[in-house]
Amino acid sequence: MAFSERVIRLKSSLIREILAAAQRPEVMSFAGGLPSEAMLPTLDWEGLPPALGQYGMSEGEPALREVLAAEARALGVDCQASQVLVVSGSQQTLDLVAKLHIDKGTEILLEGPTYLAALQIFQLFGADCLSIPLEQDGPDLAQLRARLENHQPAFVYLIPTFQNPSAVRYSEAKREAVAALLDEFGVTLIEDEPYRELTYDGGSARPIVSRLRNSSWVYTGTLSKTLAPGLRVGYLIASPDLFPHLLKLKQSADLHTNRIGQWQALQWIGTEKYRQHLVQLRDFYRARRDAFQQALERHFGDLADWQVPQGGLFFWLTLKQPLDTRTLLAEALSRDVAFMPGEPFFAEPECNPGNLRLNFSHIAPERLDEGLQRLAAVIRHAQVAQAA
Amino acid sequence: MAFSERVIRLKSSLIREILAAAQRPEVMSFAGGLPSEAMLPTLDWEGLPPALGQYGMSEGEPALREVLAAEARALGVDCQASQVLVVSGSQQTLDLVAKLHIDKGTEILLEGPTYLAALQIFQLFGADCLSIPLEQDGPDLAQLRARLENHQPAFVYLIPTFQNPSAVRYSEAKREAVAALLDEFGVTLIEDEPYRELTYDGGSARPIVSRLRNSSWVYTGTLSKTLAPGLRVGYLIASPDLFPHLLKLKQSADLHTNRIGQWQALQWIGTEKYRQHLVQLRDFYRARRDAFQQALERHFGDLADWQVPQGGLFFWLTLKQPLDTRTLLAEALSRDVAFMPGEPFFAEPECNPGNLRLNFSHIAPERLDEGLQRLAAVIRHAQVAQAA
Repeated sequence: MAFSERVIRLKSSLIREILAAAQRPEVMSFAGGLPSEAMLPTLDWEGLPPALGQYGMSEGEPALREVLAAEARALGVDCQASQVLVVSGSQQTLDLVAKLHIDKGTEILLEGPTYLAALQIFQLFGADCLSIPLEQDGPDLAQLRARLENHQPAFVYLIPTFQNPSAVRYSEAKREAVAALLDEFGVTLIEDEPYRELTYDGGSARPIVSRLRNSSWVYTGTLSKTLAPGLRVGYLIASPDLFPHLLKLKQSADLHTNRIGQWQALQWIGTEKYRQHLVQLRDFYRARRDAFQQALERHFGDLADWQVPQGGLFFWLTLKQPLDTRTLLAEALSRDVAFMPGEPFFAEPECNPGNLRLNFSHIAPERLDEGLQRLAAVIRHAQVAQAA
Repeated sequence: MAFSERVIRLKSSLIREILAAAQRPEVMSFAGGLPSEAMLPTLDWEGLPPALGQYGMSEGEPALREVLAAEARALGVDCQASQVLVVSGSQQTLDLVAKLHIDKGTEILLEGPTYLAALQIFQLFGADCLSIPLEQDGPDLAQLRARLENHQPAFVYLIPTFQNPSAVRYSEAKREAVAALLDEFGVTLIEDEPYRELTYDGGSARPIVSRLRNSSWVYTGTLSKTLAPGLRVGYLIASPDLFPHLLKLKQSADLHTNRIGQWQALQWIGTEKYRQHLVQLRDFYRARRDAFQQALERHFGDLADWQVPQGGLFFWLTLKQPLDTRTLLAEALSRDVAFMPGEPFFAEPECNPGNLRLNFSHIAPERLDEGLQRLAAVIRHAQVAQAA
């Protein structure tokens, strides 16, 4: 049997295995990144045109592309509908970007930590992943400059707004500085923004792509965090030099995105109904975050440091006594509690021990305290064993 | 700007450009492979569970996997639901198979002619595509054996039932012989069957994968030709050694297939309603095929040879005086008629001039005669010019 070299790089997905184990109803899971079922809006299918049963355009539905472009322009991204490509969830954008840019050994630049599934697919295509450490307000600029001076990455992949896993939101100053650096070195930016709308404490900042003067760029978003992930509708907006290639890659990947999900998306985006839904969603998640913060203070105050996330779906904890958190997983699952170890979010996991990603949106509030208490006990137990 | 080597292989898609030109309402198009809009069934969305808005399993919806496995077993394919992977249209199966097997320079074996979009994506990943000539009842067995003796292809890709473009259906004898040869040489089979249900003159034959004793295999099907392509729901069934790899590749490509389309598919497959729909569909396309055959006899009797297709959506014409049919396209479009040149369906287009693929399912019957008359005139004109 002849497999590609690529498949040898296809690691067993830790997320997959954890999520599988966390399916057991008795497990209190902080592991996933699922929206709360309680906040999935009721979808009305009346009026769906029968003609949407036919094949559609690889670009996406024209009316949807128009409203997505209008929304992006409202954020400051200078673009036209002709630059919008509707994709089968924003995971597909990562697949298309990898196909466009990555050969075996291609250098790319990522945040450390970064989105696990992005790291996995870029490595699947053979990328050599270089990291820039994240600080509270964005990347370490000196290290970013050094990387750009010493390497020629095919692209930089950034998640500047409520990053998964760290919840970091770049400051205005760092957004400007990053854009200037990318322009100076002529490096393509892939800016991933699934969490922009999940903002709980006000404040906003224009996307970095809107600040670029000459670098190529892809801006990517999704409806999965705000409307319904089961629809599998995301989108990318690309600079005109990249768009035609991404379109052909989309066509060869799956011809086009499902049209019923696109139609449903069009019923929401840009409407008053959607704005109201987002307000409710933010209120709901803000309350969950605040309750989580209180429970964390009770159980983790002596164990870890963290920032209160101003958006997104995750707390990112840094243990005061670092250890490889992957070694905690079996014990945690045996006590019916699940979490995401932090190491796999780094291109060099071995060099970055001691973080945990905890999802606050999905666990039922009445199980929260018990779940965090158990998880803290697992960590305490491991630290005692390590010290012994 | 740094592109992958892959993208340099990303040819401008002839199909794409033709379909774009054929969108003009005045164009009589024989080019596409679209189902007839008149035969798209009315989709009822009542009862869609709101919980399907949530993320789903990469494997697909469990109930849908069960009915797809049952349908495949009824065709003779010995399989379980655990071997079924729901994909975003069967084009995605080609993407996953390419990722699983193809590195730059990997040899694979295809029919000549073969499905254009398969050829394109395999070449995108860098495959070295070897061909086996097709005869009326399947591949040339001597050449298949010779290819297997002299090469070690990563897989053989076959479309044994009403192939696009040639409409060939393999005989029972050739199915047996192909299976025996693949077992003898231990070569993986990718069997693509989008057209199995579009059968107009009776007769059936078990899939080749059901005849294999030890080779690995992937069997791939879709709802796009019988239900509604806009749903983007297809499936693959794989031998247990391949399945886990394909599942991980699916997850990294787009997490999972949209759940609303999967739910709709589940309302149809295996039901009496679906069986009745298929009967109506076959009656409708049979009538269109018969009318097409009569019009072809009127206008192409002296120009080309062809077999009446017993299934699928296409006539495959072979010109009595071969010429590169790609050179006819501009003239045809200027006369408001579109068709698919045959050359791009071959791994070596230059060596295979003189075929046309004509879709019979989509053109309005009242425009059929005029369209074929114009197309015949374009060919006659080119042949006169060539002879001069």
